[in-house]
Amino acid sequence: MPAAFMTSELAEQPDVLARILRDVPAAAEAVAAPVREARPRFVLLAARGASDHAALYGKYLVEVLLGWPAGLASPSTMTAYGARPDLRDVLFIAVSQSGASPDLVASTATARECGALTLAVTNDASSALAGAAELHVDMLAGVERAVTATKTYTAELLTMRLLVAALAGSSDLSDVAGVPDGVASLVAAGDDAIAAGVSLLRSASRLITTGRGFSYPTAREAALKLMETCYLSAQAFSGADLLHGPLALVDEDVPVLASVASGPGGDAMAPVLSRLRERSAALFVVGSESAVASAGCGVALPDGFAEHVSPILEIVPFQRLALQLALARGIDPDSPRGLSKVTETL
Amino acid sequence: MPAAFMTSELAEQPDVLARILRDVPAAAEAVAAPVREARPRFVLLAARGASDHAALYGKYLVEVLLGWPAGLASPSTMTAYGARPDLRDVLFIAVSQSGASPDLVASTATARECGALTLAVTNDASSALAGAAELHVDMLAGVERAVTATKTYTAELLTMRLLVAALAGSSDLSDVAGVPDGVASLVAAGDDAIAAGVSLLRSASRLITTGRGFSYPTAREAALKLMETCYLSAQAFSGADLLHGPLALVDEDVPVLASVASGPGGDAMAPVLSRLRERSAALFVVGSESAVASAGCGVALPDGFAEHVSPILEIVPFQRLALQLALARGIDPDSPRGLSKVTETL
Repeated sequence: MPAAFMTSELAEQPDVLARILRDVPAAAEAVAAPVREARPRFVLLAARGASDHAALYGKYLVEVLLGWPAGLASPSTMTAYGARPDLRDVLFIAVSQSGASPDLVASTATARECGALTLAVTNDASSALAGAAELHVDMLAGVERAVTATKTYTAELLTMRLLVAALAGSSDLSDVAGVPDGVASLVAAGDDAIAAGVSLLRSASRLITTGRGFSYPTAREAALKLMETCYLSAQAFSGADLLHGPLALVDEDVPVLASVASGPGGDAMAPVLSRLRERSAALFVVGSESAVASAGCGVALPDGFAEHVSPILEIVPFQRLALQLALARGIDPDSPRGLSKVTETL
Repeated sequence: MPAAFMTSELAEQPDVLARILRDVPAAAEAVAAPVREARPRFVLLAARGASDHAALYGKYLVEVLLGWPAGLASPSTMTAYGARPDLRDVLFIAVSQSGASPDLVASTATARECGALTLAVTNDASSALAGAAELHVDMLAGVERAVTATKTYTAELLTMRLLVAALAGSSDLSDVAGVPDGVASLVAAGDDAIAAGVSLLRSASRLITTGRGFSYPTAREAALKLMETCYLSAQAFSGADLLHGPLALVDEDVPVLASVASGPGGDAMAPVLSRLRERSAALFVVGSESAVASAGCGVALPDGFAEHVSPILEIVPFQRLALQLALARGIDPDSPRGLSKVTETL
């Protein structure tokens, strides 16, 4: 059956997230204790593919909720160019569902040699990456069979949130307690809005995704899903960068998918949406009731989630859209051409 | 006359780069002295649009040549979310040709309040950004009239190289001495290779650009030029990320532009190019003689430049390609729809 793996793993997300909420806080606290003791001054996050979007979400959490400066590592500076930066006082966090990408393993080992405290977040406690880092948190998503990551992505996001809470010394997890139920409602919601999105994209070969702040990683992940499953040229831009040039390519043939959660990032999208409307862009919005109503097409998120939590929910309608659009185009998203599950970049 | 500004500013680059080589080293040394005294442990770079690609180039230079860990700032964490990270021991470098983007000015002011040493690189010494930062380096590119940045981009790259040399305490500029002549040869080279690239892209609506290491910023800037001037969906991927999913969308209708300079980053592109050939991608390569010969289409760079210098040269054929393709498609790249020169993102 086409899409059997992606369909079941997409639907499995509420259970996975409930398991993470139950078991990861203790594991996060266990790794947070030595990190807090080391008192890092900077955080570097390293990842590839979908995990890179989870790392970007982690960067925002670290900067906004912890107040620690953070950046995304460029693995090639250490692997291809032999850079040996002074990484004392740096917490180096590598994120990978497989834990098997050779360049991440190599850059984590190098970061450790250069003085960083290294922490791996993976879905395989026996992976090379888990072994290369001093500390490890297992995202407990269970085996993922679909080439297109769904449950490991939301698992990575929630695990990053729990890790940052532990680093902040907080045991208050009330902001994420409702996440499994919220995701369940998005998985089970009627197909009408998704079908409208499929119609919008049915004959598109290219599209733009956008979001700002915490929702920018969602825009990037939504674009990746549509590239992998439907071979579309899907380009993600932060709302700010979209106005610096790429806006020129938007017209009625280039649909735009926007993440507009309730909060400062969503508010900052207002001028972007208004410029997009001027250009007659066909819009599909995931976010607040009002943003969806004003676009006339999209999926509203359940109420009551803080903006820093919404990314765990807002990707789900985009996953469903990618799945349904692939099927509508006669593609089996479990067998995308040209891809395999673990990418052996050196 | 269509493209009058872009054409003349593209051709002006050798003179601009020669002026920078003459006048910026002293200015860079003047700002480097207080930076070295402050002994930063970490560098954050902030920019938008084309300048973001120059900032990414700067990040690679800082990591590889200085051995300081570096990251790209997410301005929205400070402007939209009110993050107040502990930025003591951080050198915050903001890069902007106009120096007028309000979110960059605001995040630079906040970074300074949070303890960072702030440095602005702009093309306007009287700009708000130059005033907001404690230190300023003028890239001396002269007034840029085209909406599509050309000379300010290469000016930013060379200025970043001179700044990093000064931070390293080095007065040996032999690696960049030949840059004005090298760029002049690329500006003046015959049109045949560019015309072949125009043919390749003539009917494309979407394409991919790629490069690795120091050439990855080139891939991103080349994509932006083609988006702005030709309204193409041009997506840039590092060679490593391309193999994580986006490879699926490459086929004979999706041309690929690759930067493959001589050096470790170019060498790391070999497996990427071989996967692209398996997928019958139409390739246009800027880089080493051998990479261009093997692709059968593209522009070879002049010999003798280190890989960390090649980005200043390798963007030029892509600028020419964007200009010629726009004209071939009946677009005036001096008046792209929907864009203005300064982007007022808040």
